[in-house]
Amino acid sequence: MAELHLLSPLGFRAAGVYGGIKSKQSPDIGLLLCESLVPAAALFTTNQVVAAPVKIGRKHALSGLLQGAVVNSGNANACTGSQGDKDALVMCELAAAVAGCKRDQILPASTGIIGHFLPMDKVQKGIKEAGKFLGNSQEHANLFADSILTTDTRRKVASAQFKANKQDVSVAGVCKGSGMIGPRLAPPSAKHATMLAYLTTDAQIAPPLLRKLLAEVTETSFHAVTIDHHTSTNDMVAIFASGASGVPIKGGKGLESFTGALREVCQSLAYQIASDGEGASKVVVITVRKAASQREAMNIARAIADSPLVKCAMNGNDPNWGRIISAAGYADAKFEAARAHLTLQGATVFSRGRPVEFERESLSAALTFHEVNVELTCNLGNHEAVCWTCDLSHEYITINADYHT
Amino acid sequence: MAELHLLSPLGFRAAGVYGGIKSKQSPDIGLLLCESLVPAAALFTTNQVVAAPVKIGRKHALSGLLQGAVVNSGNANACTGSQGDKDALVMCELAAAVAGCKRDQILPASTGIIGHFLPMDKVQKGIKEAGKFLGNSQEHANLFADSILTTDTRRKVASAQFKANKQDVSVAGVCKGSGMIGPRLAPPSAKHATMLAYLTTDAQIAPPLLRKLLAEVTETSFHAVTIDHHTSTNDMVAIFASGASGVPIKGGKGLESFTGALREVCQSLAYQIASDGEGASKVVVITVRKAASQREAMNIARAIADSPLVKCAMNGNDPNWGRIISAAGYADAKFEAARAHLTLQGATVFSRGRPVEFERESLSAALTFHEVNVELTCNLGNHEAVCWTCDLSHEYITINADYHT
Repeated sequence: MAELHLLSPLGFRAAGVYGGIKSKQSPDIGLLLCESLVPAAALFTTNQVVAAPVKIGRKHALSGLLQGAVVNSGNANACTGSQGDKDALVMCELAAAVAGCKRDQILPASTGIIGHFLPMDKVQKGIKEAGKFLGNSQEHANLFADSILTTDTRRKVASAQFKANKQDVSVAGVCKGSGMIGPRLAPPSAKHATMLAYLTTDAQIAPPLLRKLLAEVTETSFHAVTIDHHTSTNDMVAIFASGASGVPIKGGKGLESFTGALREVCQSLAYQIASDGEGASKVVVITVRKAASQREAMNIARAIADSPLVKCAMNGNDPNWGRIISAAGYADAKFEAARAHLTLQGATVFSRGRPVEFERESLSAALTFHEVNVELTCNLGNHEAVCWTCDLSHEYITINADYHT
Repeated sequence: MAELHLLSPLGFRAAGVYGGIKSKQSPDIGLLLCESLVPAAALFTTNQVVAAPVKIGRKHALSGLLQGAVVNSGNANACTGSQGDKDALVMCELAAAVAGCKRDQILPASTGIIGHFLPMDKVQKGIKEAGKFLGNSQEHANLFADSILTTDTRRKVASAQFKANKQDVSVAGVCKGSGMIGPRLAPPSAKHATMLAYLTTDAQIAPPLLRKLLAEVTETSFHAVTIDHHTSTNDMVAIFASGASGVPIKGGKGLESFTGALREVCQSLAYQIASDGEGASKVVVITVRKAASQREAMNIARAIADSPLVKCAMNGNDPNWGRIISAAGYADAKFEAARAHLTLQGATVFSRGRPVEFERESLSAALTFHEVNVELTCNLGNHEAVCWTCDLSHEYITINADYHT
């Protein structure tokens, strides 16, 4: 079987071109288009300071029907006042002209530096050029995936497929995100890093159900990844459902399969963000078990994942479990050290209020692996959450302090 | 006038000795004693995982009357189960024997690594030795101040004096804290880094008023400093009022002067913690003005102070104001970019939703100063808060990742 990609679901075309917005010569303008108006759903940052494309995108996503998306990297079009709003609308207009639809049927997005006006001459030229290079090959998918990257060191892609009524249904996605990652997203009617994720599927699914599933799956995927706890002004997750498989998703086994496929894609993308976090040398998977509630399980996992001290210890391959237990203790959640049990890479280091002897050297060696597993059992209930993060390294400081904006 | 110090307020004696708990040969066991039982108040960490001395200290502080304090550095006696509780009580017993009081009239504290049992032979020998070297000179004050330090690079001392009824009243304090600093404190009856602060005064003041004033002043001092947002298991602030000045503090001008002196001492100590934060090259003073409420003003200031991206920009002398505005946007507080005004070292960089042109090179040069002032005006109300933090540097990573526990 050929490798699946963003354009494996039927009914999509995409392009990515270099418009000259990023200093690095790699694609920075992308188009993802459907053949007609299709069910779509999007979640946006809950930061109260929102970029112009988020303001515009919230409005355009409200109807639940979209024909495509336009995106640029290298400039966030955030904190740019009313000029920024106009520029985001012009992006939609230009994309709509390519797609043959109305401008409010296009979802705009931008990612990059905050507080600079978009170079609209380059943006205009880029979108027009992208329009000439649309296609549905793996290369087209790759160029679009690259067009959204900023400090990311690699492309992030995931896909899943299932059979319903003997018919293949595909779900796929690409995303970007490496720093300023602490996504808290919500539907456009309410409010919710810069993380951008684009999901495609050829399932037939109605907009309200699509939105509900996207919100549900986001909880245990994009909301479960944090690099620096800094929620961006531009975060967005969007899904487009072309319906081209001819398989309707409404309930029963089909719905279950679709939700599973969507979760698999979103969780893979979230994991890839953690793995490619700015300066990251490893992914840290934090599993909290037997917490008093779902919310509390996630709050504990997030508190551990966001502690600079825990992240530095991980960078140094240091089994400093005191930092983990103390972070759990200040989380907004019930936690009792006297009941808790903690393992690092499967080795118990703390149990029921007391330290447990362990082989320091071999555990430190195990912490050098690319994936580190932290498992904390609370023994207070029956709820579980998983959160992904990375270590905090000298390279993170170099990326964010030594290179000037 | 001679320099004031922790033992300038009349009625106190102290000592600090090296007992061999810290690897670095500097005092690690301290005693601070009054001549009799005196009004005292203490606030403790709100982390749900609390060190043994915090558990014991909460009980001992409840009566509002104490005769002194015993402290060790180099070992936090945290996550040490019931053995830890016993050890903390033994520390109190040994100090009480020196002071000539009961063990529950002594406030214990420990700071250092989590999850190791105290070397009680060294602790016992150290406390007995400290008992032989008590005194009230500046040298005694310095040795006590040094006995509480861990990764701190310098002693932290502050003092203030005022006249009431033509009589001098002194307030003084010492503290420690450099990493794992994000204090959230509360009275013993409720719950509230490792930050330790010891305050002395020779004012005559009743325990309930002393506790109320300590809690009030802590809000705008110790609660307004953050290094890494990691609330410790051992944080404590304690004040002892010997009454030896003979000046009663109850209300009116005297109360006002005392509160002012106490605030001056606590704010100076908090500032010194930020200035000596692990790896810090500068103090960042964040002032949020015209916020909708006091709580919201502080939430915005804390969100900015806790953002690794903001702290890295400060380390790099980078006027990257987008990180500041976006952090304000995700704070738990009302914030509208369209109304906000932001200055860095007095230079306006953002106003009412839009970037403001500034001299990048000269502002970057101004950001190299030891104190950086970030002033954000929200224009949503009339409330103000100040928060102190430091930059996030390569040295922070070195301290917390490269050196093993």
